[in-house]
Amino acid sequence: MRLVVQKYGGTSVGDAERIQKVAERLIETQREGARVVAVVSAMAGVTDNLVKLAHAVSPSPSARELDLLLATGEHASSALTAMAVNALGGKAISLTGAEAGILTDDTHLKARIANISPRQIHELLSDDYIVVVAGFQGQSAEGETTTLGRGGSDLTAIALAGALNADACQIFTDVDGVFTCDPRLVTDAQKLDEIAYDELLEMAGAGSKVMQSRAVEFAKKFGIEFEVRSSLKSVSGTVAKEETPSMEDVVVRGVSLERRQAKLTVSGVRDQPGIAAAIFSTVAASHIVVDMIVQSAPTDGVTDISFTIHQDELEDARKILMPIVSQIGASHLRTASGMAKLSVVGIGMRSHSGVAARLFECLGRSGINIQLISTSEIKIALVIDENDAERAAQLTHVEFGLASLAPAASATRPLG
Amino acid sequence: MRLVVQKYGGTSVGDAERIQKVAERLIETQREGARVVAVVSAMAGVTDNLVKLAHAVSPSPSARELDLLLATGEHASSALTAMAVNALGGKAISLTGAEAGILTDDTHLKARIANISPRQIHELLSDDYIVVVAGFQGQSAEGETTTLGRGGSDLTAIALAGALNADACQIFTDVDGVFTCDPRLVTDAQKLDEIAYDELLEMAGAGSKVMQSRAVEFAKKFGIEFEVRSSLKSVSGTVAKEETPSMEDVVVRGVSLERRQAKLTVSGVRDQPGIAAAIFSTVAASHIVVDMIVQSAPTDGVTDISFTIHQDELEDARKILMPIVSQIGASHLRTASGMAKLSVVGIGMRSHSGVAARLFECLGRSGINIQLISTSEIKIALVIDENDAERAAQLTHVEFGLASLAPAASATRPLG
Repeated sequence: MRLVVQKYGGTSVGDAERIQKVAERLIETQREGARVVAVVSAMAGVTDNLVKLAHAVSPSPSARELDLLLATGEHASSALTAMAVNALGGKAISLTGAEAGILTDDTHLKARIANISPRQIHELLSDDYIVVVAGFQGQSAEGETTTLGRGGSDLTAIALAGALNADACQIFTDVDGVFTCDPRLVTDAQKLDEIAYDELLEMAGAGSKVMQSRAVEFAKKFGIEFEVRSSLKSVSGTVAKEETPSMEDVVVRGVSLERRQAKLTVSGVRDQPGIAAAIFSTVAASHIVVDMIVQSAPTDGVTDISFTIHQDELEDARKILMPIVSQIGASHLRTASGMAKLSVVGIGMRSHSGVAARLFECLGRSGINIQLISTSEIKIALVIDENDAERAAQLTHVEFGLASLAPAASATRPLG
Repeated sequence: MRLVVQKYGGTSVGDAERIQKVAERLIETQREGARVVAVVSAMAGVTDNLVKLAHAVSPSPSARELDLLLATGEHASSALTAMAVNALGGKAISLTGAEAGILTDDTHLKARIANISPRQIHELLSDDYIVVVAGFQGQSAEGETTTLGRGGSDLTAIALAGALNADACQIFTDVDGVFTCDPRLVTDAQKLDEIAYDELLEMAGAGSKVMQSRAVEFAKKFGIEFEVRSSLKSVSGTVAKEETPSMEDVVVRGVSLERRQAKLTVSGVRDQPGIAAAIFSTVAASHIVVDMIVQSAPTDGVTDISFTIHQDELEDARKILMPIVSQIGASHLRTASGMAKLSVVGIGMRSHSGVAARLFECLGRSGINIQLISTSEIKIALVIDENDAERAAQLTHVEFGLASLAPAASATRPLG
């Protein structure tokens, strides 16, 4: 018999009515002839409230206690989901992460899954139970409750699918799947039928927050296929999987855009070991997240180091960098906000040469100035003016033929 | 070193600020030279909300899932309390009921404590931790989370105090202790320094809801002394303990009043086996709680059966009893609402004769009519008109010298 793991996020179990909808789908999936394991997040808003309470009683809550506190959100939603299934005539049981056999290391708040012992789940499935597992959590070898960090429920679902050798792992969300570009930017953006793990990872890093990177990395490591699909519609979504040779036929899988970026350039930096470290350890110590880092080739032993951050953090970054700039003997610090990062992702780039050139030419023709460039094997990322961002995404989408990947109702609409 | 168990109810941990107050007290108790175990209830309102959610997804939630759901309330408050202690420079750790070693039978929603293995608590106390235990819950032998029913956190505290052989068990509430009478009724009501378990049990059954009977029964069974005291003030409360010979010197320990009662009398009942059962099984099947039951001595093989219920349930009771009355061949059913039950409790009654007579005489002198009488070894309960209730309580309080038990600021104020 088929074994299906379904994951439902916080919005999908956000209130009693939605929990009942999830319960209906679980029963329906079982009736279609599958053994069903559900993984649920905490009800939308619950985790945030618990975090708020924790910070109201303590400026820096102990990680162990915070884990115990946060885990209650998923305990509650899993019990409620099981109740709802039972109320509809189904047969369900809820399990905590520990009961589901999810063993982690002892890193509270960001534990890594060490092992999964799915014996109990298998037994319950054999007894025709729909097994509802509290996502986002596990238990350390010492029996302590741990949580897996942001996106942890996705990770729970993918790891369980792997351990149970499931036939399908479905991640239900409020989007229909992964798109060639954000449909709000490009009206004829297409839903992808499939995507390689690496492409999804690069797109996640590029602002397409369908899935957290950790869950995708886990899936990649263990070769666990999963489908991102809508919890509101009964249509198939996007399957993330290992790349196949045919995937390389598509040069670019998707285009993504991250707005509200700021660019910082430290100029006249001596080309010596330790200089970059001095800059970035200072920035990291202030918990400012650095995205792209680009260093130009040195001229006369002097170079420029540029990097991007979210523009809301620009003022803080300037303040902490000003003293460093003089310390390391750099000439000056230039900053600019109102930037955007355009990323073009596709494993097809590996075998198709000239993708970068084609991209630069396409944007250049339209007078869009490129301020920074950073490339990986399957991604080209550019920093451009935010005012050009939407047009750049649309042009790129057309240039690489993404709209024509698959027929869609919206494909006939003009760009806009 | 002294070992103290302190229990805090839902109001005491009702918000972040109150949790911090509890944390302060725990640290203070430890600094005074004690090992401290705290037992906490769910934050006020949380359990009710969870029950509401459960009923929104299911008309009759599975008991197992409901237990898992409800237990999260105490998980959260115990973790928050531990965080608050740590934030104030203390050293605390929270434990679930299972982690605290509380083993129960497998009766979900109303589990009985089977055994307590306090090994882990002892270890943590030796390491100078303040141990915060989630009240109201345990674990069955099969590893399932169970809850102990209403008042379960009191039971957790008392059972832990017993298992840990604690030097003190303090139940913190929003009242100062157990009083000779409700101070809202009798202005010179006195806080009792001590009370026998049996007296507290009778007073709990008589409407003085300081503690749930189950917790008191448990304390009595295992001889565990506990103190009911205020979480708002630093004054000693009332110690519940096994009776001592000197306790019998006080004839009446307390007077309590339950308002809004209704009296039902089935008249002309044949004095045959099974007749009372027919009446009360019918009432019980409708989940109507019957309090006093009085049957008069039969005359010519015919008797009256009277009983009391809450007056809000009178209409329902009438409807279901009317057919029974004719079935059992009784002559008629008389009902009256607007009644009150006055209870006079004291183990001294055992050795002091004439208490009932003295009570009846006192009320009779003031023209208060007694409609039903029921007595136990240490309690006399009377049904009277609700209009007479307050006056009757005051008169009884004076008659048995309760106001003069101990000096108090309010003792000089006049009655009424």
